[in-house]
Amino acid sequence: MSHFINNNFEDVLINRHSVRHFDPKVKISRDELQTMISEAITAPSACNLQPWRFVIVDTEEGKEKLASFFMKFNKPQLETSSAIVFVFGDTQAYKSYRDLWNKAYEDGRITAEKRDEVLKTFLPLYEAASYEGLIHDAKTNSSLAAMQFMLVARGHGYETNAIQGYNAKVAAETLGLNPERYVPNMAIAIGKPDPNNLPSEIKSTRYTTEDVCQFL
Amino acid sequence: MSHFINNNFEDVLINRHSVRHFDPKVKISRDELQTMISEAITAPSACNLQPWRFVIVDTEEGKEKLASFFMKFNKPQLETSSAIVFVFGDTQAYKSYRDLWNKAYEDGRITAEKRDEVLKTFLPLYEAASYEGLIHDAKTNSSLAAMQFMLVARGHGYETNAIQGYNAKVAAETLGLNPERYVPNMAIAIGKPDPNNLPSEIKSTRYTTEDVCQFL
Repeated sequence: MSHFINNNFEDVLINRHSVRHFDPKVKISRDELQTMISEAITAPSACNLQPWRFVIVDTEEGKEKLASFFMKFNKPQLETSSAIVFVFGDTQAYKSYRDLWNKAYEDGRITAEKRDEVLKTFLPLYEAASYEGLIHDAKTNSSLAAMQFMLVARGHGYETNAIQGYNAKVAAETLGLNPERYVPNMAIAIGKPDPNNLPSEIKSTRYTTEDVCQFL
Repeated sequence: MSHFINNNFEDVLINRHSVRHFDPKVKISRDELQTMISEAITAPSACNLQPWRFVIVDTEEGKEKLASFFMKFNKPQLETSSAIVFVFGDTQAYKSYRDLWNKAYEDGRITAEKRDEVLKTFLPLYEAASYEGLIHDAKTNSSLAAMQFMLVARGHGYETNAIQGYNAKVAAETLGLNPERYVPNMAIAIGKPDPNNLPSEIKSTRYTTEDVCQFL
């Protein structure tokens, strides 16, 4: 039996929509927040680099730090959400890549030959990459985990809003991370919708599949 | 009733893993590929900009074009998958943003005041953005749709492999897109796993939640 409250994939996917006004009385336990992160990070990543880092802000002090660099139209989410999960990309994930594959070898999951082949094939790509390239890689891949987090939240009975309106230049430092290493990707507000302040239109206007898709 | 073959969210999410050897006999109809795209693009995006573009490669000619700029370790996926969905970010999505919100107004979904407020708040952020900033935005947000596509594929009974090993500089042009406008984000191979060539280890080694997550 699933531990998801809502295990209906179609509903989780199709009926997800952004919620900006949450019920401020609802608190989510740190245990459950961590469980949701553990489910989100089953996402894939290029070369299995897992270049993501999450700062979960669920205290008044933490939210005040966020308020100092968030654009003001994101104030309702800050004030009413149970937590804000700030997703960063990790531009130095490749530095622990050797340890990761050594662990897989030591756990008996792969042979030494397989480990060495992986390291020889992929690690040089990152060691030779530009900082800009590492940022792109970190953002692209941490977004995959971010999307899974938003769906996982619905599996747990919550709603989310992904926020990208903030001063990206100060995000990492304000939240206590090394800004050279960690690049802000998005913040995800999570909670239960405020029953007294539901969005007037749930579904945003979307382009059609034909608008964005072609065959070759 | 769901039209997903596999509507068990926990299974779709937790048991997803990368497949690199597909059954080459399995073809997916263009109708079904388009349906999967339409489900994937229910993903959110900053300011609802929807900065994504998909090129679905399901012909020999198209796959030969991909082979010309893919790294050679991605050859098995190219040769055996039913299709490769190349996900691009659209750095000029903001140029149709006014039309999108006008349509919402004309359809009677929002008031003229709401439309004008949205355009006044968000559009200047993009019009003033650097090209580099638009690339980041396009990559971050098109990754959200990419992740949904990988999960949707499982809902339809298929498996995927996200590929980022290719010469990004020539991707758009080789696939017939304007390289100034469209930035390559990832290619997703899709198909049914080859029963005669299943991966030796299904689950990749992962960092723990504690490794990648902290509270504030």
